[in-house]
Amino acid sequence: MKAAFYKGNRTVSVGDCVPVEPRLDEVRIKVSHCGICGTDLHIFHGSMDQRVQMPAILGHEMSGEISSIGDGVDGWAVGDPVTVMPLDFGPKPPKGHSHIAEFMKFMGIDSPGAFQSYWTVPARTLFRLPPNLSPAHGALVEPLAVACHDVRLGEVHPGEEVVVIGGGPIGTLVALVARQAGGHVLVSEVNPFRVEKARQLGLDAVNPTEDDLAQTVLDRTNGRGADVVFEVSGSAAGAAAMTELLRIRGRIVVVAVFANKPAVDLWKFFWKELRLCGARVYEAEDYDAAIALAASGELPLDGLITATTSLEHLQEGFETMDSGGECMKILIDVQA
Amino acid sequence: MKAAFYKGNRTVSVGDCVPVEPRLDEVRIKVSHCGICGTDLHIFHGSMDQRVQMPAILGHEMSGEISSIGDGVDGWAVGDPVTVMPLDFGPKPPKGHSHIAEFMKFMGIDSPGAFQSYWTVPARTLFRLPPNLSPAHGALVEPLAVACHDVRLGEVHPGEEVVVIGGGPIGTLVALVARQAGGHVLVSEVNPFRVEKARQLGLDAVNPTEDDLAQTVLDRTNGRGADVVFEVSGSAAGAAAMTELLRIRGRIVVVAVFANKPAVDLWKFFWKELRLCGARVYEAEDYDAAIALAASGELPLDGLITATTSLEHLQEGFETMDSGGECMKILIDVQA
Repeated sequence: MKAAFYKGNRTVSVGDCVPVEPRLDEVRIKVSHCGICGTDLHIFHGSMDQRVQMPAILGHEMSGEISSIGDGVDGWAVGDPVTVMPLDFGPKPPKGHSHIAEFMKFMGIDSPGAFQSYWTVPARTLFRLPPNLSPAHGALVEPLAVACHDVRLGEVHPGEEVVVIGGGPIGTLVALVARQAGGHVLVSEVNPFRVEKARQLGLDAVNPTEDDLAQTVLDRTNGRGADVVFEVSGSAAGAAAMTELLRIRGRIVVVAVFANKPAVDLWKFFWKELRLCGARVYEAEDYDAAIALAASGELPLDGLITATTSLEHLQEGFETMDSGGECMKILIDVQA
Repeated sequence: MKAAFYKGNRTVSVGDCVPVEPRLDEVRIKVSHCGICGTDLHIFHGSMDQRVQMPAILGHEMSGEISSIGDGVDGWAVGDPVTVMPLDFGPKPPKGHSHIAEFMKFMGIDSPGAFQSYWTVPARTLFRLPPNLSPAHGALVEPLAVACHDVRLGEVHPGEEVVVIGGGPIGTLVALVARQAGGHVLVSEVNPFRVEKARQLGLDAVNPTEDDLAQTVLDRTNGRGADVVFEVSGSAAGAAAMTELLRIRGRIVVVAVFANKPAVDLWKFFWKELRLCGARVYEAEDYDAAIALAASGELPLDGLITATTSLEHLQEGFETMDSGGECMKILIDVQA
């Protein structure tokens, strides 16, 4: 079997390795597809070298089918199509909101991930994929669950005006899920390729370096302001814009991972009684929602996938993403 | 009758004036007591000279009794003890959350206030005071309603760990109301007089320039972090501390009026799924709650009043507050 190893210094190389035998409560999955996540890119940049153990097998946005089952596993059979919720709380997860528990291993970061032919995981992390869901779309369940979580915390109601600041893969999925929830969605994105991509997906999109975002939102809302803003850019400009776009008692969901502490207009929070919540990963119900939504065929998921390539080309995938250029989600067909 | 006029240049002077006859839907109140608010001090500093019309009669934290009634007013009689909710939306207030309506006059800022012998106001702004509530405590209803609003939005539940950053008059009232709601409250305040005052009122208090606030909170919560933080300081240090003190999914209520846009750790919002809401003034239910709470006798309100003086000494009251020194709430006995 093959695996891609991150070795530091912006280098991923493919090598042979031995499949891990599933132990008690574990299964081995034959990995089909695995997407490259922004966090993987962050690791590729070396920003998390103190956290990952090199050589590291990354990858956590995956689909596959069960190929081998360890002792103590009930309810699963060889050949079942599955994806994994890559949060490992150990055998006794904490009660309530365990997804933000203090002590949680993120599989594919803190332990080996899915950029390998076979991935051995605890059976408790499995989610069943419907037979009509393609393996490529199955690999989008994880980022789609992020979006479902974000939109759930944002409490988007039908008819509400929604602005998504940042139209990368996660921002675009948030926009699509918010639209599915009945929101009237505007994407703000500075990358012209991604603006065009959002429009191809049927979303309204604006480039705030070319057009006045605040005025656009006022025009769309009869001067009232948006109901919900999702901050997915992680930029100082996004943090400045988020408070400018909202109506009285409007809501902000902070999805992005901010590397710095931006200036925030707390006066505006007071004046309009704005609300803000942070949103991180997902809970089981978000995975259920994401699987159902992906299987419904109602989201234009193919439009999000800008390339599908083999494990041998993972390095190029990182470099393409790194160029900040003309891509959205890059999938690895692991068995190709 | 007398009135105190703010004339700009940090000057208030008392002069004679003619009582305003109550017109349709109005009453005239013989003012008993009126507190000096932080906003009044802000005006005294000249910071709102472009908003107030000079000479301006300030004052909106008041008690009194009805002395004259205009046409069309039902349900009120001469002699009724009252206070005023000083938010004027006009005769047809907007529906829902009118307290943060775009177009609202704040009485005592945008129109004449209560630092005068008689104050004529729309009857719709009146709230009845119970006979057992002293006029001095009646003048505390307005700031107490701010605190009731803040604690309501903070959703403080019995047994929760609460931190109030900023122990001035509003912060101290927030602390007292949060304690009344069952919270286990810690006040953080840099002014030694106010730290001592909080302790005299039976509150736990810490001076973050002397003690480690974050460690104190961890010690009080078995390392878990606080459930709710009220930011009442309006300082960059407060904005930095608020995200450091909370447990997973902890809540922040921004009560302070921030003059600047401080750096805020949005990463922490993501990581712990923190929540934040702004809180401004109050709604009618907060006034009802404040009146009931003041009349219950369960709050140590006398301890909050550090001076009661006459209208002629209003200038000195401002200067005492301005010295940042040894005061909390200064009341004016308007008829003295």
